[in-house]
Order: sequence, then C-alpha cells, then structure tokens
Amino acid sequence: MTLKLYFSPGACSFVPHALLETTGEPFEPVLVKLHKNEQQSPEYKAVNPRGQVPVLVADGQVITQIVAIVGWLHERFPRHGFLPAEPLARAKVMETLAWMNNTVHPTFTHVFMPFKFTDQPEAQAAIKAYNTGLYRPMLGEIEALAQAAAGRGQAWLGGAQFGPLDAYALTLLRWGGFAGIDPTGFPALWAHVQKVAQLPAVARVIERERLQLNVYKAG
Amino acid sequence: MTLKLYFSPGACSFVPHALLETTGEPFEPVLVKLHKNEQQSPEYKAVNPRGQVPVLVADGQVITQIVAIVGWLHERFPRHGFLPAEPLARAKVMETLAWMNNTVHPTFTHVFMPFKFTDQPEAQAAIKAYNTGLYRPMLGEIEALAQAAAGRGQAWLGGAQFGPLDAYALTLLRWGGFAGIDPTGFPALWAHVQKVAQLPAVARVIERERLQLNVYKAG
Repeated sequence: MTLKLYFSPGACSFVPHALLETTGEPFEPVLVKLHKNEQQSPEYKAVNPRGQVPVLVADGQVITQIVAIVGWLHERFPRHGFLPAEPLARAKVMETLAWMNNTVHPTFTHVFMPFKFTDQPEAQAAIKAYNTGLYRPMLGEIEALAQAAAGRGQAWLGGAQFGPLDAYALTLLRWGGFAGIDPTGFPALWAHVQKVAQLPAVARVIERERLQLNVYKAG
Repeated sequence: MTLKLYFSPGACSFVPHALLETTGEPFEPVLVKLHKNEQQSPEYKAVNPRGQVPVLVADGQVITQIVAIVGWLHERFPRHGFLPAEPLARAKVMETLAWMNNTVHPTFTHVFMPFKFTDQPEAQAAIKAYNTGLYRPMLGEIEALAQAAAGRGQAWLGGAQFGPLDAYALTLLRWGGFAGIDPTGFPALWAHVQKVAQLPAVARVIERERLQLNVYKAG
C-alpha cells in the first residue's frame, strides 16, 4: 500500500501525521505551505477541492477530514489501538474528538483567521477578541480531561494507548500560545502535552514540521 | 437495553432521531425546548454539561455529538447499514458527515445565532450576512452529491441504504429556508430530501418534531 499525507506545519494535520508516523508504515509526507496559499493552487485543489489539509491518499484514494482519517487509520492499523476497542468507550473518544474538531478548533479559527467569517475589518476585530475569550475555557475543559485521566492512572486521554485526542490536545494547546494564552496555566494538560511530544514518533513529526511546542510570548 | 434520545425540533438532533426510529428499537424521545433555553437548565446540564442536543443515553451511558452517536448506532444496529461496510467507503461517508458537521452546520449557526461569535450587534449583522453568502454554495456542494448519487443509480447519499448523510442533508436544506434560500433551487437535493421525508420512519420523526419541510418564504 502506498500512503501519502498532505500536511501543513502546526496545522490540525498534525493529528493524522503523528498517528501515521506512530504506525511505522512508510509514507510520503507532502508539505503544503499555507502562508504561500499553496492549498488554493489548482494542483492542490485537484487533490482536495475544499483546499484544506490534512489529506491522506491511500493507494490513490483520497480521504479528507480528521475524523474520517482517524477512523480509517484505526481500522487499518488495529494493533496501535488509536481508538478503544469497546464500542461505548470508542464512542466517548469520538465524542471528544468531534468536539475538538467542530467546536474548539473552529473557535481558534475565529481568533486566527477572523476574515473567514466576515469581510468587515471592525467585525473581524470583534470576532477575534470574543473568541479568544471562548477559547480559554475550552482549553480548561481539556485540562479537566487531562486531570481526570491522570487521576485514573490512565496514560493517554483516550485510554491505554496514544491516540488522536493526545495529538489534538497538543495542537490546540499550542495554538493557544498564538492567542496569548500561556500553556503553563493548564498544568495537567501542559504536562501531558510535553509527554506526548517526547514519544519518539511524535518527536520525529515535531522535527519534520519544525514546531516549537510553546509559542506563547508574555506581555 | 434502554435508549433515550434528547432532541429539539428541527435541530441537528434530527439525524440520530431519524436513524434511531429507523431501527425499530423502542426508545424514549425527550423534547428539549431550545426557545425556552431548556438546554441550559441545571437538569439538562447534568446530562450534557455543554448544553447541546442531541444526547443519546444507552443503559444510562451518555453519548453526545452526532459523529459519535452515528458511529455507535451503526455498530449497535449493523443490519441497517447506516454506514458502508467497506472501510474506504465508510471513511468517505464519514468525511462528508464530518464536513456537514464542522463546516456547513456551523456556517448556518453564524446565520441563525451570530451572537454566539460576538457580543457586538453590528458585527453580528456582518457575520449573518457574510455567512448566508457562504451557506448557499455549501448547499450547492450537497446538490452535486445528490446529482452524483442519482447519476450512479445510488438510492442514498452514502450508499445503498438510508443513513446519516440523508438525514443531515434534509436538515441543512431545510435550515436554508430560514436563511432565505429556496430549497427548490437545488433540484436534485430537494427531490432527494422529499424522498427521505417519505420513508415511514422519517415521516414519523417529522410528525413527532412537527416539522414543515419547506420553511422558505419568498420576498
């Protein structure tokens, strides 16, 4: 099987990138430069007409959307247990994954790219400020998940094995730094994210994407 | 097994509501009145702290988020084939389901509830107008999916059996009416949605939720 993953450094494509690297399966990572708008090029839109990362191409078949890619990786590489085996436990992980993807992630998009929601500059500033206020308590919810997992002696957010919630938590907490939110203000989550970053496969992905884990600048 | 579904008429809870009714399994439908803000009551927040519908309670276990509930229903009631059996086909359906859930649905939320994204009235008006403009081409993408399915002689958007894409398509096209978008302007999708509405189980859910399929008012 040939596998190709289109990613952008630090984007949510980090989630499938970290999972795919964890499998040990050979794959071709393809860098898409969002700051050069490469995701809107005709070549890229021929792959994903919606002009977004991530895209996984498996034997020529295109899969987009984190939720879909994660489900496929889970089934294709079952020994890594990216999702729990038991249906209810799996549903609970999917619930948190869906919430990260349809609520936390888009809230940050309002902070980082408010122009996606209005073409009025004043309204963009209002959106950015308001959603920064929403983002912090969402990170607080993930902090509570990290505390609860630690309290149960559970190594990873979704259960006994590293999975999509851990990689997404790293991404979302890191993004908080761009919104002026200090990651160390979420101690259980920050400790967890540092542990995630030290997994050998995740460390390789961080190196390949050239990411700094804490991008928060005081003041 | 006891099953309870918390829903609000016409909300995205229509998706699991229609699927659950299709199973023929007995369940308790619980109406949550969003216009009376019942989803923010202490009683409801004890069930779902995020104050949203849908919630499925299966033998006392709470599952939220459409993507998670759909996955659980698919596995619990496999003979209904809510999702395709083949992994790649299932990933492609999950891709469209995730896009409806994290992109099309929130775009409508910007139109219907712009106060969720800013507390500035002028910015709310700007958000509402801009996102109405984004919503129409998204319905155009679903129109293209309906055309493609019809062109392949495929009865339902996700494959050979009725599933979440059909129920979500009905919901999203119906919402368009509230945004001043005429559903009959999307002929393949409108025909498909009318076919969905005529499924006996779906018709029962429409009756229970007291929904009018076309809420568009000209002028």
